[in-house]
Amino acid sequence: MTKTSSGNFFEDFRLGQVIRHAAPRTVTLGDRALYGALYPSRFALSSSDIFAESCGLSPAPVEELVGFHIAFGKTVPDISLNAVANLGYAECRFHRPVAPGDTISASSRVIGLKENSNGKTGIVWVRSTATNQRAETIIDWARWVMVRKNRIGAEAPATTVPKLAEAVAPANLIVPPGLDFTGYDFDASGERHCWGDYAIGEKIDHVDGVTLEEAEHMMATRLWQNTAKVHFNVEARGDEARLVYGGHIISLARALSFNGLANVAPIAAINAGAHAAPAHAGDTVYAWSEVLDKAETAAPGIGALRLRLVATKGRDDGLTLRSEDGRYAPGVLLDLDYWAFCPL
Amino acid sequence: MTKTSSGNFFEDFRLGQVIRHAAPRTVTLGDRALYGALYPSRFALSSSDIFAESCGLSPAPVEELVGFHIAFGKTVPDISLNAVANLGYAECRFHRPVAPGDTISASSRVIGLKENSNGKTGIVWVRSTATNQRAETIIDWARWVMVRKNRIGAEAPATTVPKLAEAVAPANLIVPPGLDFTGYDFDASGERHCWGDYAIGEKIDHVDGVTLEEAEHMMATRLWQNTAKVHFNVEARGDEARLVYGGHIISLARALSFNGLANVAPIAAINAGAHAAPAHAGDTVYAWSEVLDKAETAAPGIGALRLRLVATKGRDDGLTLRSEDGRYAPGVLLDLDYWAFCPL
Amino acid sequence: MTKTSSGNFFEDFRLGQVIRHAAPRTVTLGDRALYGALYPSRFALSSSDIFAESCGLSPAPVEELVGFHIAFGKTVPDISLNAVANLGYAECRFHRPVAPGDTISASSRVIGLKENSNGKTGIVWVRSTATNQRAETIIDWARWVMVRKNRIGAEAPATTVPKLAEAVAPANLIVPPGLDFTGYDFDASGERHCWGDYAIGEKIDHVDGVTLEEAEHMMATRLWQNTAKVHFNVEARGDEARLVYGGHIISLARALSFNGLANVAPIAAINAGAHAAPAHAGDTVYAWSEVLDKAETAAPGIGALRLRLVATKGRDDGLTLRSEDGRYAPGVLLDLDYWAFCPL
Repeated sequence: MTKTSSGNFFEDFRLGQVIRHAAPRTVTLGDRALYGALYPSRFALSSSDIFAESCGLSPAPVEELVGFHIAFGKTVPDISLNAVANLGYAECRFHRPVAPGDTISASSRVIGLKENSNGKTGIVWVRSTATNQRAETIIDWARWVMVRKNRIGAEAPATTVPKLAEAVAPANLIVPPGLDFTGYDFDASGERHCWGDYAIGEKIDHVDGVTLEEAEHMMATRLWQNTAKVHFNVEARGDEARLVYGGHIISLARALSFNGLANVAPIAAINAGAHAAPAHAGDTVYAWSEVLDKAETAAPGIGALRLRLVATKGRDDGLTLRSEDGRYAPGVLLDLDYWAFCPL
Repeated sequence: MTKTSSGNFFEDFRLGQVIRHAAPRTVTLGDRALYGALYPSRFALSSSDIFAESCGLSPAPVEELVGFHIAFGKTVPDISLNAVANLGYAECRFHRPVAPGDTISASSRVIGLKENSNGKTGIVWVRSTATNQRAETIIDWARWVMVRKNRIGAEAPATTVPKLAEAVAPANLIVPPGLDFTGYDFDASGERHCWGDYAIGEKIDHVDGVTLEEAEHMMATRLWQNTAKVHFNVEARGDEARLVYGGHIISLARALSFNGLANVAPIAAINAGAHAAPAHAGDTVYAWSEVLDKAETAAPGIGALRLRLVATKGRDDGLTLRSEDGRYAPGVLLDLDYWAFCPL
Repeated sequence: MTKTSSGNFFEDFRLGQVIRHAAPRTVTLGDRALYGALYPSRFALSSSDIFAESCGLSPAPVEELVGFHIAFGKTVPDISLNAVANLGYAECRFHRPVAPGDTISASSRVIGLKENSNGKTGIVWVRSTATNQRAETIIDWARWVMVRKNRIGAEAPATTVPKLAEAVAPANLIVPPGLDFTGYDFDASGERHCWGDYAIGEKIDHVDGVTLEEAEHMMATRLWQNTAKVHFNVEARGDEARLVYGGHIISLARALSFNGLANVAPIAAINAGAHAAPAHAGDTVYAWSEVLDKAETAAPGIGALRLRLVATKGRDDGLTLRSEDGRYAPGVLLDLDYWAFCPL
């Protein structure tokens, strides 16, 4: 029994510590197919090799969230196996596309530690980096989680709270090498809307809803090698249903957002994300978006939109984010703040 | 909210109009694996690259219905988003095999229009064509749907009803380039029966049944990028269960038909198809076939069989298609009329 | 109705008879992705092409059980369609890795026959061999099943009971050509434990549990082209739920065993396997292992461990295999005895 890992507890983390996560994972065309079977995604860049090539991306990449989920999943056994809560992430940037055949490795550096006053838990901040087989950075992000202490009396480290940007500055967005939207084919992509058509403050109702299934969220979560037991084990949940992995809701909402944002891809950065409520099989998930900001880029024909992507359990025609008391409105599952590119 | 598409209504269609459907979709080896996970298919031509090559097909193609479902799914957002009923299809021909790596695009031409006397709906006929990345036709077919009008008072177009063949004539069947059954390996394929063993009028009971699951029909339907909400959204269905995509029943019945038709592949044409009743998760689906016609071809060792493929909900040992009143017998889900090739 | 196969009955088998099974099956990257979606597997050798290459395996193979399940599935229509019980298997050796692109064929030779005293059933022993497209053996194994007679009065063959080894002798284990663990990367693999760290008699609790889903076990079983109706057809089961394919439990338990056996791969041989109780959707499956034996090999940096892998329905903190009466303890689903390689 001593052979199995019980994960890291708050007192096991040290400021500056670097953790190399197991196991590297090769992305394949099979992942692309499964992503399409699990999410109603139709973005032309990841649907068609020919479309991707016409935009300067060859080989055709998988959707950005495939890389994100795999990279994120690698950090779970070392960072958040004993987490009480996932508190947030920030400064997530997509550095280069991930294509089938690429092998993703991940490592994390501890950049902040703060014991809670109850002496039982503490907050750990890490900056994680995913690289491909050529040691090129593909994604990096900061994340903070509340982690249990194993021994209540364990000595607390000095408190260090890192300063993280509220959002990635437009100047720091990285356009994938070669991406060129000057010859963008709006017939093939499915919608006419370009960067100039979106106004800051505009809300977009993505209309459709999808009912969650146990088999689907579990298959998705396994695909990312995320093994957190709350997603898989009914027996360990007592009276509660299996919890749906938050990343499943992100991918589902993003796929639904095709209806209104068909040309808003690839994702460039994730500024922040809050999982406002848990989701379970049987819930029907809808999505809406709000344009938060716009920016130009130096790349050919390419602008950037900053969007809030909101997933709700049950339909909310009012597209309401928060109640009058400032809390998330009932039914809000996800509030994701991200940048994506868009043809001018 | 104006960014999302509400689809075309009856009054939006014009005779001769050509609609280019979004988004092109690259077929991968992942689709092949998923098809095999979702349907109990064992046809040697699509199971084994070596078998396919021995029959002159290299690279090894995916099953014909993979291409059909993808191509069909592309037309949904433009043609049948506001459909009241899918009335039929005809003259569907498979022109060339689809192999992993091929990118499928689809377009449709409006070939018929007829407003219904109630003034609320009308019938739209389209001829759709799917092409690969070399602009070669891979599948084409005619289809007609009853579509709602958006404004009851909208002016009706002149009525045009196209003449469609009851069945594809044998002379119009297209043998895939290179296909050669003269060295067909009946040991590897799983059955001994060849073209000469089938008699017109013969019925074949495919014996096995498969119980439908929500996760499976939804994954299949997403794989084809078909997003019709009736398949995915419990909340929007009121008291009714999610409706299973008709194409899921076609693929399931076709896969079950391996037992008795192991050597009857690839599919050459679909003459007609009727979805006689809706199917839902929990239904157990069986299949039987009837040999409707036989034809020779000029290709080496290759004959053609015209078959009726019937799927039923619950087992019917009597293999009954219609009740005495001429309607489909209770339990009949699908009545599909198609041509497939078979070694002589 | 005469076109469909009713499988072989006891009186149809002849000693020395060789049966070539349909249909050959090409393994793809899609199978690899689906395996990862269906099982929480994280073994570095099959997760990362780069890791596999660093251990001398290029192209990177799929997990050994992928080949096993496909090969095994091919034998079902000819050997066990009319089986009353799968009695056991033995002497299963993995001769060479299976990589995406390989096409697996299988054949079986009848090596034993014994009619039961009731005159209604008999035991059939076969030795099955799976080969790749280069006619190289990839896996072979012996198996015996109890099969129904079709005609009670059918003449019984002479009784022949083959002698099968209790376990594959270490000297007969086949190290995959090129496998070299001298530069094994224990950071990337996820655990530190090597061959020397495991002691005979040691038990390892793999901790996590996974609740079974209908859609998942059916997709897995179809993937291996195993069409036994007990897995798919609710209607045919009467009051009982669909039975989960025993191989699904093997793969699930093996994947769970990563937690404690992360470096114990690839599988070299299966000595014996007993499916002690049926499993159904809704059951939560756990796993534990016991080290049965250890052996050195002549290959660079490579040892071998003989392990008992036990899957249970519901958690058993006591890791109990058998009750005092010698029978399997309540809740034990699987007792699998196998050899796997491990870095020294």
